Amino acid sequence: MRKIFRDLTSVKEARKIFYQYADPKKLGTEKVELLKALDRVISNDIYSPGNVPPFDRGSMDGFAVIAADLAGAEEDKPVKLRNIGEVRAGYVFEGVVERGSCVEISTGAPLPTGADSVVMVEYTDRDADVVSITRMVTPGENVVAAGTDIQKGERVIVKNTLLTSRELGVIAAMGISEVEVIKKPSIAIFSSGDEVMEIGSELKPGKLYDINSTAIASNIIEQGGVPEYLGIIPDQYEAIENALRSTLGKYELVLISGGTSAGMGDMLYEIIDSLERPGLLVHGIKVKPGKPTILGVCGTTPIIGLPGYPASALSIYKLFVVPYIRKLAGLQVEDTDEQITATVKQRIRSVMGRHEFKPMNLIHIADEYTAYPVPGGSGAITSIALADGFVEIPENTSFILPNTEVKISLFSKNIKLPDIQIIGSHCVALARLQTLFTEKYPQFTSRSISVGSTGGVASVRRGECHVAGIHVLNENGIYNSWLIENTDMRIIKGYNRNQGLIVKKGNPKQIFTVKDLTRDDVRMINRNPGSGTRILLDLFLDKIGIERTNIDGYDNFVRSHSSAAQAVKSPHVDVALGIENVTDNDLDFIMLREEEYDFLISSRYENTDAIDAFISTLRSDEFKEILASLRGYSVRD
Amino acid sequence: MRKIFRDLTSVKEARKIFYQYADPKKLGTEKVELLKALDRVISNDIYSPGNVPPFDRGSMDGFAVIAADLAGAEEDKPVKLRNIGEVRAGYVFEGVVERGSCVEISTGAPLPTGADSVVMVEYTDRDADVVSITRMVTPGENVVAAGTDIQKGERVIVKNTLLTSRELGVIAAMGISEVEVIKKPSIAIFSSGDEVMEIGSELKPGKLYDINSTAIASNIIEQGGVPEYLGIIPDQYEAIENALRSTLGKYELVLISGGTSAGMGDMLYEIIDSLERPGLLVHGIKVKPGKPTILGVCGTTPIIGLPGYPASALSIYKLFVVPYIRKLAGLQVEDTDEQITATVKQRIRSVMGRHEFKPMNLIHIADEYTAYPVPGGSGAITSIALADGFVEIPENTSFILPNTEVKISLFSKNIKLPDIQIIGSHCVALARLQTLFTEKYPQFTSRSISVGSTGGVASVRRGECHVAGIHVLNENGIYNSWLIENTDMRIIKGYNRNQGLIVKKGNPKQIFTVKDLTRDDVRMINRNPGSGTRILLDLFLDKIGIERTNIDGYDNFVRSHSSAAQAVKSPHVDVALGIENVTDNDLDFIMLREEEYDFLISSRYENTDAIDAFISTLRSDEFKEILASLRGYSVRD
Repeated sequence: MRKIFRDLTSVKEARKIFYQYADPKKLGTEKVELLKALDRVISNDIYSPGNVPPFDRGSMDGFAVIAADLAGAEEDKPVKLRNIGEVRAGYVFEGVVERGSCVEISTGAPLPTGADSVVMVEYTDRDADVVSITRMVTPGENVVAAGTDIQKGERVIVKNTLLTSRELGVIAAMGISEVEVIKKPSIAIFSSGDEVMEIGSELKPGKLYDINSTAIASNIIEQGGVPEYLGIIPDQYEAIENALRSTLGKYELVLISGGTSAGMGDMLYEIIDSLERPGLLVHGIKVKPGKPTILGVCGTTPIIGLPGYPASALSIYKLFVVPYIRKLAGLQVEDTDEQITATVKQRIRSVMGRHEFKPMNLIHIADEYTAYPVPGGSGAITSIALADGFVEIPENTSFILPNTEVKISLFSKNIKLPDIQIIGSHCVALARLQTLFTEKYPQFTSRSISVGSTGGVASVRRGECHVAGIHVLNENGIYNSWLIENTDMRIIKGYNRNQGLIVKKGNPKQIFTVKDLTRDDVRMINRNPGSGTRILLDLFLDKIGIERTNIDGYDNFVRSHSSAAQAVKSPHVDVALGIENVTDNDLDFIMLREEEYDFLISSRYENTDAIDAFISTLRSDEFKEILASLRGYSVRD
Repeated sequence: MRKIFRDLTSVKEARKIFYQYADPKKLGTEKVELLKALDRVISNDIYSPGNVPPFDRGSMDGFAVIAADLAGAEEDKPVKLRNIGEVRAGYVFEGVVERGSCVEISTGAPLPTGADSVVMVEYTDRDADVVSITRMVTPGENVVAAGTDIQKGERVIVKNTLLTSRELGVIAAMGISEVEVIKKPSIAIFSSGDEVMEIGSELKPGKLYDINSTAIASNIIEQGGVPEYLGIIPDQYEAIENALRSTLGKYELVLISGGTSAGMGDMLYEIIDSLERPGLLVHGIKVKPGKPTILGVCGTTPIIGLPGYPASALSIYKLFVVPYIRKLAGLQVEDTDEQITATVKQRIRSVMGRHEFKPMNLIHIADEYTAYPVPGGSGAITSIALADGFVEIPENTSFILPNTEVKISLFSKNIKLPDIQIIGSHCVALARLQTLFTEKYPQFTSRSISVGSTGGVASVRRGECHVAGIHVLNENGIYNSWLIENTDMRIIKGYNRNQGLIVKKGNPKQIFTVKDLTRDDVRMINRNPGSGTRILLDLFLDKIGIERTNIDGYDNFVRSHSSAAQAVKSPHVDVALGIENVTDNDLDFIMLREEEYDFLISSRYENTDAIDAFISTLRSDEFKEILASLRGYSVRD
């Protein structure tokens, strides 16, 4: 019987169907030594087998006494007691303190039988066996009673608690050296697809590295599971069938990250449905990215077929696999620690009728989080991996408006947001500056997002980043400084770089000026709107009176100088405007002008330690040396 | 030459002196497989060895074409191209696409040479070698250019980054299977003191378990270090000297957690100063708890002598050891993720002239954190261990005012705050209810802090907890319900429990009524002010007209029923008011009245899933069975 899935299933419905057959029953338990229990989930309540402290304990150096003996003792009216012995920490006084007698006691030692309090040594004066005491005590004074911290029989640790160093300390206090914890779920991972190659091997033409296995396996570890990587299976029915069959009953869950080819999905779907009942459960989910997902259970083994694109695979992994692993491991599914409330600053579009995952970057400034979509989207291989987390957009929503608060689910709770967030123009020297910054100040981190100069200016103005790298020329031929008039922004002087035309090696089309861009045999690639380089081009065009529509390729753009250079190497592009630095021996460069690359900063962040360190790195001799050695860059005085 | 330290050193000064000799130079590096690099710190920048994707890639199933060939193609004006082959993901088309020809391409396959775009299969109709196409494309359409995600030579990972699953996915995308990471610092741990015994052994009289080693070793793991536990050393000069000497040059840091005896500190101080230069650096620090700390460096090995009391040892560990380990490991020292801003709700006292650490519990409700000091203080063994974190109070501050915002440093970033925070009266059945709650609803956690009924009522009113367990009788003989008049609080009916006089076995003093408390030969122990039990006693006393001053022990109190029962077993106390449940075969109980124990809840938290689950647990048959089986408890109808 072949099951037919005409419609895509909603995420909610898919989860329901999956859990109906793949019930995440808690795993068995195992006994481990206390230190090995760190980050594990305890499987039973722990009741204290004894009192902590186990005996009444002196908390001061002094003499153990019967409080009633000291009634009326004062500085000029000392009471004399007979010292009958001494007790130190770790030992027990074998005698009994009776009226008129006392025992010398050190901090932490057990209170001798008969005594009810300790008088501090400061109020005593000992002469052979006679101790003169000049102060009264109340019963229980300077004594920590047995069981003050933990009472015998008290429930101290509740089952299903994730054990941190804090809980382990408490368990140790009760003398317990081993605990019962929930076993870790074991998850098999296959990759499939003829185009996938193992990392570390030499990449053959047309092939890609297997990203999904590493990204998923390492996240399984973070989620408390044990991944087992079983390799890459070729796109063949029998190979996949044999591989899957060999895992049945051996793992808590089997993941197969599929190839991108169209036929692959059909094959996997047939195999899962034929192996063991109930077989295929869901084929295709209303989620973006991640539509071509397959959920099934063969016998007792749940199998999830993840889409081949890494962004899609990781979305489905987060939606279906993470909660399943956490339930198996006895961990909380909704870990609120891993969600951060952030404000979205730009309109984010989504597809109606699809539950959408948007990978986002977070910026943390002055206790406020703002979130930006990561460029690239689902097609891009690393978009999810480079993001800090994602925002979920429900099926019935087509966009998020600017200034909306959203919940960002972090990809890992160890993700560290940078101390300095840089937004603005793409620059090769900036990357070098950041490396030097980290070298000189290892306590600080920085991150740069390239959105163009205009976007950088707007971000600094709104206080959403610390620094923007910019190069914006105005009609009067002035760079950058004109932007800060009547604002609370400040310019930190940067360096110069050569802007010009990037052409193919030997300049086969003989392109020498901006005017050549209008030629019929010349096709350009532009930079993104808002980039300083595009603004520069527009100023050139306006000056010599050229219509944009007369330029082939004006509307096609890339987002970085490097991408522009890369594009000129392709057969379809002849020229781009860009910085000399990104040209290499395979390209030629025609200088147009030296431009000023500066840093914009909001005065409100001006005097932080991290910014001071950043400026000091920019001014350092080491960075001047780097600039001098970089093609197309120079120090500005 | 014997160094003399007359004054305590400030924390700042102590750090400065310590770092002067114990420079936390970064450790060497080691190469590890990618998956083993999770949670490690990478030691070098990673520049991409190639483009990702490595080639221009079709992003749709369809035909690879030259865009110019499709100029003017429309639904009723198809352009016909000759299909010269097929390319699937993982393979390369060996020929060249020339004007008038096309190649069938599947998603993810490399774009054949000569083609510049892909037209989706939906707009094509193939008949043998001829493909009719009904739509134009622009150059680059449905093509992901080589290097779109990562450009060859681009710096993708910055050195000193903590590697999470996110970074490992990106590194895998570049095909890199091994990375260079900073070695983990190796830290030796000794305990010393004749009173300390290893956990897991049978506790001898006068001895305590070694709490510090486990608490510290597990935190060292959390901080990225490798602890090596070297056992317990007896309080003898030679034994300690030999133990320390054996570690010199072998560890990045040696910790010795000292005994509490007075002589111990002097001994350690002499040994550290005599082993190797520079020797002893600091003896005694202006910090509470943690004063008797010793810092030294012998040769190249820093040695820190921690105080014996666990709370003191852990404070010093956090102040001096954690930053040192993190610096060695290449990690950020100030991890802002581990700090939470919370509001303090009660006045917190501190000692002027001492940098103080107060262990605190956090409550997280409606995006607000409130912080409460953990009862117990530095003398209590588990106070720090049971806390969520601590607040640092500087030397020159003597108190924190209510409603002040403070920074709470978490003890572990994995600490999970409870879904239901209960504050109020101590109750044995409540602990059982919490266990049942976790069993029935493993997704929720709860925590209970005992502060007495009155404190519980105040906390619910201020919205600082979800639920309070209370039993408060008024002069009219009404329990609890009178408290909610004209408030937004609600009562959830609980159960009944027997309150009465707890006396020694056989009732040797023949205590039968509250009036007996005034007898000269009877000494009581009271409960803490604000507890329902103390309120009950006061109502009894007022009713029969007894002065509190006529009762021996009225002003001495303990904070729980269990502690009251424990106290009655001691020779110094005859009687306490408390619940029958805490009596055992060694005590007798004289019933005074059946009281109503209920739960108070703010209406604003009434309809959450966690509270619904809690109420449903309270009403369950399982809980009724538990009540029926508990001494002194009964179900109320």
